[in-house]
Amino acid sequence: MQDQKGDVLKRLAYIEGHLKGVRKMVEADQYCVDILKQTYAIKRAIDKLEGVLMQGHLNGCVRTGFRDGRDEEMIDELSDLFELSRR
Amino acid sequence: MQDQKGDVLKRLAYIEGHLKGVRKMVEADQYCVDILKQTYAIKRAIDKLEGVLMQGHLNGCVRTGFRDGRDEEMIDELSDLFELSRR
Amino acid sequence: MQDQKGDVLKRLAYIEGHLKGVRKMVEADQYCVDILKQTYAIKRAIDKLEGVLMQGHLNGCVRTGFRDGRDEEMIDELSDLFELSRR
Amino acid sequence: MQDQKGDVLKRLAYIEGHLKGVRKMVEADQYCVDILKQTYAIKRAIDKLEGVLMQGHLNGCVRTGFRDGRDEEMIDELSDLFELSRR
Repeated sequence: MQDQKGDVLKRLAYIEGHLKGVRKMVEADQYCVDILKQTYAIKRAIDKLEGVLMQGHLNGCVRTGFRDGRDEEMIDELSDLFELSRR
Repeated sequence: MQDQKGDVLKRLAYIEGHLKGVRKMVEADQYCVDILKQTYAIKRAIDKLEGVLMQGHLNGCVRTGFRDGRDEEMIDELSDLFELSRR
Repeated sequence: MQDQKGDVLKRLAYIEGHLKGVRKMVEADQYCVDILKQTYAIKRAIDKLEGVLMQGHLNGCVRTGFRDGRDEEMIDELSDLFELSRR
Repeated sequence: MQDQKGDVLKRLAYIEGHLKGVRKMVEADQYCVDILKQTYAIKRAIDKLEGVLMQGHLNGCVRTGFRDGRDEEMIDELSDLFELSRR
């Protein structure tokens, strides 16, 4: 679990750096298409971060939740997450 | 469960009809923007269909899977579905 | 332009066939995860169809629209399409 | 145009702050589902930022590009952006 936390924090640091790069591009009036390509890349990096978080959630809370008989709660939550994940 | 199947089939019939409407628009050389708006709407209808299918999956197979101790299988499958759902 | 129309119609026929396959899977009570994988694939096929339509739109109407001085109209329409394309 | 730049920078600052909030949640071992809800919200905020950037691009570079006869370049670029925008 600590491994996962380290991975998530590393990914967050990378995304924060990427975002700062975008701010510098905007401040320097760089070409809007180049800026857009960077924001798309940031969203893809967030997607991958979410994949790691979801994996941890399934392996941890969801597994335990079903084991503890909190089926309804787990099902509702997963259903919500699927809705949210495609916006 | 039969209720859900009926709902899914009704949604599929609606989507098939919608798609036929798009074909007629293309055959009649209608404005591309109007056609695109319809294909976007069809994808949203498929999103909703997937929501119903996912709800059924969680309430049925996933609940039973965890109850039967097939935790790993359920977790891997859900993890894959999340990856696929955001393309 | 006729080439593009033929391509679009072929893609639509393929998607309609794919959707019928999904209906048969639902009627035969096949595994929900397998059905979901097919609906995801159908959305990806619609994405590609939209790419072809958009290409045609840009090369045809948009090019002509700007040439004819209908800049505002073209800009508003493209802006709307971008909003819609990401739902 | 400066108005747009100010708007974009304000949105970027907001997203950077939001991301820092997510980092604090991860460091404090908060519930993964709550963290995921925040990352989804960040992607939606980036979507809106992209809408502003695209609007500026269409009103500026694209309009000028077509006026200057660089049709092919504009069309290829817009086509690429559409592809990228849906990942």
